[in-house]
Amino acid sequence: MRTYLDCYPCFLRQALAALRLITDQEAEQKRVLDLVMQTLPTLPLEYSPPRIARTVYSIIARETGVENPYREIKIASNRQALAVLPELTRIIERKPNRLRAAASLAISGNLIDFGVQHEGFKVSEGLNGQFPDHFDFDDFSTFEQQLPETKKLLYIGDNAGEIVADKIFISQMKVAYPQLEVGFAVRGAPIINDVTIVDAKQVGMTEVARVINSGSRAPALLEDEMSPEMADWFLHATMIIAKGQGNYESLSQSELPIFFLLQCKCPVVADDLKTPVGSTIFKYHHGCQAE
Amino acid sequence: MRTYLDCYPCFLRQALAALRLITDQEAEQKRVLDLVMQTLPTLPLEYSPPRIARTVYSIIARETGVENPYREIKIASNRQALAVLPELTRIIERKPNRLRAAASLAISGNLIDFGVQHEGFKVSEGLNGQFPDHFDFDDFSTFEQQLPETKKLLYIGDNAGEIVADKIFISQMKVAYPQLEVGFAVRGAPIINDVTIVDAKQVGMTEVARVINSGSRAPALLEDEMSPEMADWFLHATMIIAKGQGNYESLSQSELPIFFLLQCKCPVVADDLKTPVGSTIFKYHHGCQAE
Repeated sequence: MRTYLDCYPCFLRQALAALRLITDQEAEQKRVLDLVMQTLPTLPLEYSPPRIARTVYSIIARETGVENPYREIKIASNRQALAVLPELTRIIERKPNRLRAAASLAISGNLIDFGVQHEGFKVSEGLNGQFPDHFDFDDFSTFEQQLPETKKLLYIGDNAGEIVADKIFISQMKVAYPQLEVGFAVRGAPIINDVTIVDAKQVGMTEVARVINSGSRAPALLEDEMSPEMADWFLHATMIIAKGQGNYESLSQSELPIFFLLQCKCPVVADDLKTPVGSTIFKYHHGCQAE
Repeated sequence: MRTYLDCYPCFLRQALAALRLITDQEAEQKRVLDLVMQTLPTLPLEYSPPRIARTVYSIIARETGVENPYREIKIASNRQALAVLPELTRIIERKPNRLRAAASLAISGNLIDFGVQHEGFKVSEGLNGQFPDHFDFDDFSTFEQQLPETKKLLYIGDNAGEIVADKIFISQMKVAYPQLEVGFAVRGAPIINDVTIVDAKQVGMTEVARVINSGSRAPALLEDEMSPEMADWFLHATMIIAKGQGNYESLSQSELPIFFLLQCKCPVVADDLKTPVGSTIFKYHHGCQAE
């Protein structure tokens, strides 16, 4: 998905939110925000929003020297989500279709997104036990049909906190289909509250999946900037699940089939998906064959 | 009130909304939006938001050659508001305190604001007959005490559509206090959906007030840029009423006492007023004496 002009106010809003985590000096915030405004015109609309966001956040890191302003928030998000993990697992194990319930939980967890949320957000609101197994965009049956034949599953992670829900979903898949080999892709460097190797370790993702450093410094997986291991998984996985808006934005034109699991949180993505803001999405992208 | 960094995403959003009224060519929209982003860093935070907005809209006018993108919308807003004027007047005349009801209507009318509204907005939603005579910030009793002694009232208008509610409020004041001489200030040039002399004529404001060209090309009254007639009214009025957020933003530090009547529609103004977004404001500003 390319960038739309509606994304520009949002880039500024995101930059300001990150800058306020780094410094309470308004003059310094303005200095960096000014640089962001001067740089945005140099980037083409053909770039996906996360590719432009990467540049925005890299300006902030370069200018302030702070690479990971969301570090403490991420640790706290993971900790809060881990605290409710046993209860969430119990709820899922009482459901008639555990896999569907776990998928629903994983999508609910995608509400934990500091790139989109305007204000402080409680992880418990994203993981509140209310995952009604309903998807507004529902290709779950396609997923259920393909999963028994899947050997190598690539799961592209999104945010801290949310990663705990991802872990529960992956666990449920592996209980149902023990043949599954799962790779869990994380970003190659801190960006917003996206998961990196640090988060994967904090929540014990290695217990259920091989954790893959995607090499991406964007809040998404960029197909032309993968680490060798990531590229190998991406090309040879028998199923790909991509979590969240960022991964949808960067991969929605992919030639490969992908299951996109996300909460639709912004009007631009909503337009692209032809669905209202607030929709829960479990969408099968068939893949676009090269010409 | 000075500008806050939170205003920058909003300036871009407003610019984009105006550009989309002017052209559906995205490349042209982007060209002008880029110029706005390159210009914003050159303007100091000490400026009030409407002073910066004036520059933003002047870039749009200069680059596109379209001075008044909201022209059709304003005419339609006035026409819709005029259509409900008799009914609104009847409702007010059945109220025990007609003046308070008319003030409430005038504040409800302030919802008609294309600088703030994100999407298409129906005038009937702003003037829907539901003006419950309740103000979240309520200095109405001060107003009621001062009005009998007021000879020269300056009423600084805000938006098209809303101006019909202003006219009803002014009419009620003049019924109660026939000695009142009212000046109704309009902007000196088209800016967003703010009222100019054209709107004042369309709704027959001249029937109840002298219409004053303020000279302002901003979506507000700027104290240092008034026409001579405006300055005379501003300095010699025995009461000043300023409608809407823009006038609040530019006049909140004024040395003169002013009644601010508005719907609080954005978080920055809400912070300044220490009130939630959505509040109805009838606030008496005592005036700041010069040192």
